[in-house]
Amino acid sequence: MGMTLTEKILAEHAGRDFVEPGELVTVKVDLAIANDITAPLAIKQLEKYGIDRVHDPEKIALVMDHFFPPKDILSAQQIKISRDFAKKMGIKNYFEGQDSGVMHTILPEKGFIVPGDLVMGADSHTCTYGALGAFSTGVGSTDIAYIFATGETWLKVPETMKFTFYGKPQRWVGGKDFVLTVIGEIGVDGALYRAMEYHGEAIQALDVENRLTIANMAIEAGGKNAIMEADEKVLEWLKDKTDRPLRMLKADPDAKYCCEYEFDASKIEPVVAAPNLPSNVKPVTEVAGKPINQVFIGSCTNGRMSDLRIAAHILKGRKVHPDVRCIVIPASDRIYKQALHEGILEILADAGCLISTSTCGPCLGGHMGILAEGEVCVSTSNRNFTGRMGHPNSEVYLAGPAVAAASAVLGRIAHPDEVVGTKAEAVV
Amino acid sequence: MGMTLTEKILAEHAGRDFVEPGELVTVKVDLAIANDITAPLAIKQLEKYGIDRVHDPEKIALVMDHFFPPKDILSAQQIKISRDFAKKMGIKNYFEGQDSGVMHTILPEKGFIVPGDLVMGADSHTCTYGALGAFSTGVGSTDIAYIFATGETWLKVPETMKFTFYGKPQRWVGGKDFVLTVIGEIGVDGALYRAMEYHGEAIQALDVENRLTIANMAIEAGGKNAIMEADEKVLEWLKDKTDRPLRMLKADPDAKYCCEYEFDASKIEPVVAAPNLPSNVKPVTEVAGKPINQVFIGSCTNGRMSDLRIAAHILKGRKVHPDVRCIVIPASDRIYKQALHEGILEILADAGCLISTSTCGPCLGGHMGILAEGEVCVSTSNRNFTGRMGHPNSEVYLAGPAVAAASAVLGRIAHPDEVVGTKAEAVV
Repeated sequence: MGMTLTEKILAEHAGRDFVEPGELVTVKVDLAIANDITAPLAIKQLEKYGIDRVHDPEKIALVMDHFFPPKDILSAQQIKISRDFAKKMGIKNYFEGQDSGVMHTILPEKGFIVPGDLVMGADSHTCTYGALGAFSTGVGSTDIAYIFATGETWLKVPETMKFTFYGKPQRWVGGKDFVLTVIGEIGVDGALYRAMEYHGEAIQALDVENRLTIANMAIEAGGKNAIMEADEKVLEWLKDKTDRPLRMLKADPDAKYCCEYEFDASKIEPVVAAPNLPSNVKPVTEVAGKPINQVFIGSCTNGRMSDLRIAAHILKGRKVHPDVRCIVIPASDRIYKQALHEGILEILADAGCLISTSTCGPCLGGHMGILAEGEVCVSTSNRNFTGRMGHPNSEVYLAGPAVAAASAVLGRIAHPDEVVGTKAEAVV
Repeated sequence: MGMTLTEKILAEHAGRDFVEPGELVTVKVDLAIANDITAPLAIKQLEKYGIDRVHDPEKIALVMDHFFPPKDILSAQQIKISRDFAKKMGIKNYFEGQDSGVMHTILPEKGFIVPGDLVMGADSHTCTYGALGAFSTGVGSTDIAYIFATGETWLKVPETMKFTFYGKPQRWVGGKDFVLTVIGEIGVDGALYRAMEYHGEAIQALDVENRLTIANMAIEAGGKNAIMEADEKVLEWLKDKTDRPLRMLKADPDAKYCCEYEFDASKIEPVVAAPNLPSNVKPVTEVAGKPINQVFIGSCTNGRMSDLRIAAHILKGRKVHPDVRCIVIPASDRIYKQALHEGILEILADAGCLISTSTCGPCLGGHMGILAEGEVCVSTSNRNFTGRMGHPNSEVYLAGPAVAAASAVLGRIAHPDEVVGTKAEAVV
């Protein structure tokens, strides 16, 4: 019997020919990662058990992204603890500030993950790397401490759900609309401890960045991981980023799925997830008109070049509504520079956007754009739970960059066509 | 008998021909300002006394700069309180985000202050506007509430100290080195409740931005205000910014000063104020070599175009040291855009600087670059008290932009000549 993509990777890393859902397996970990919140907790665990070395410093990456630049003394201390640990353990892949950014953006852009890898991260959005044909999932700080020390972990092989997208998407519809549509369909626990395997011509037609957006939000449906076949596009995207051997990776034709969903991409409109669940998904036209106070374009979900280009396309020659803070945070230092070189930042700044150095920042209610009581934000990030970005009585509408930028211009939730007009060139 | 600049302005605003030091006078206030920390306190006072209108909304400006973009729920609420108050009271000069920035940078650049004005601000660095020939000083939130309600306040006429700078400054020496030299000479209480009036060819030779830096730090010597004659340069600088009538303003030749200091600008080296007092001033060569963790270029003291240009001159084609976070925060949205258009931001970003939207941020230990225990920062801001920018055991060296940029490159406190070489073109 064949295996799904997830089963294949877990089998390889367990040193087995075959695994099936429900089995507990011990797997070698190719990359173990933590951030400025979780790394110090893991370090504390290692200290508690007197462990003064890591299994393999090359297979660890620490990225200071949540409260960077340090927002207060506590976050400064957390970063210092992580930095000192990296130095002591010989972990070269410690990233803070220069040439750094949001973990799930910089690690793929630096070529740290290739198809077939197994990545464990003390951060729930570690599932992002599934877009590159890797198995990757989030774990707690204690688990990551164990992996730092031993280079391996155990897990239960998840069942795999199959999602197939066919058809040609409408203008303005991107990866964010795909994944929100899925979550709207199956709910925030619809993929609980399951692998979400994506297929179909509409997925293949997406660029790698839009695929990363889809994989990134697997956890918002409760998924253990998301995964996609590593195709030519993935290999092309990776080839300048790493010297490691690259391979295409496909599920077996006779792989067994616990359930299958099909979506006609041509029927998907630009959507938002209304407060207070990522599954509360509606076509943007249904909530258009709602006044807003803030727009946030950034995060590990939608803070990449393609997102900034779409926002710039909509904002070029226009102005952010005077009642709106439009906060743009490129998700990595590299993206910041590229957007600067391409003139994207100039377009955004001239439109009235407030552009900052890379950080997770407002996505998790960390800093750099927190909401007051009653304030409403359209955010390209991944969660809109009660109080996620500030006051318990604030509201977050999740959306893709096109809806976010259009809403910034009009000062209310808006369909991009309301701003650009229906005859203009598509950019998505 | 003649009057000093400060006495002249106070007399005018008291409706008197003459005032002398020590007198208590009631004065009309041309502009009353508050920020996101102090405005809500003033608003609370007004509410406490049931005052539901302000004397003149045109003469009030509220600028959200300290914890902007909101760093947490509390700061978001403070901003919301201020915004709601501005709307209710018809205060058009409410600035947040777009076209905003650090109060003491945006108000001069928008032409809100002209020579001869009397400005009271619920912020200690309100003294900045003395560079434009205005009387301006900081007061508490209760005082500013009274001014919001009545348009006037009372104060004691300060004695005036006269500082004269002659000679031609060395390369790299700017307004920051001038004012630190003064504070080093007279101490942090050397100008307690006194006006600091600046004169001399070396002051006249400075551009308006460098003069603003000098006036900005009067409070660091305990001064009530700083003031300079409004000359052609000031009028030229202001003429595109305001439609209000502009006049030159000079002290009377027979004005009476309580004391006089003279400085030979040619003898001033680039200096730093070492921890933990702005008066702990040393030539940079005396502390060069000290390893650092962070550089901050920004604030109401040194976050203007001339500062960014100097930093870019030094950082162009070079790299920030890998162990240093070099945080650059243009002090206004307008400066951010101009620096972007001029290619300054590209130079800084390529060098490895982390550039953010305008905020006071790390200067007051607010956010965006707080120091951990033992960390050392070279900062172009104005205060280096214990714990000012973070942990009580962190250290802040105050310096001008040239020393800050040079230190960023070398990862230690450095004289700019160490980086640029002594033969290169001067830019200061």
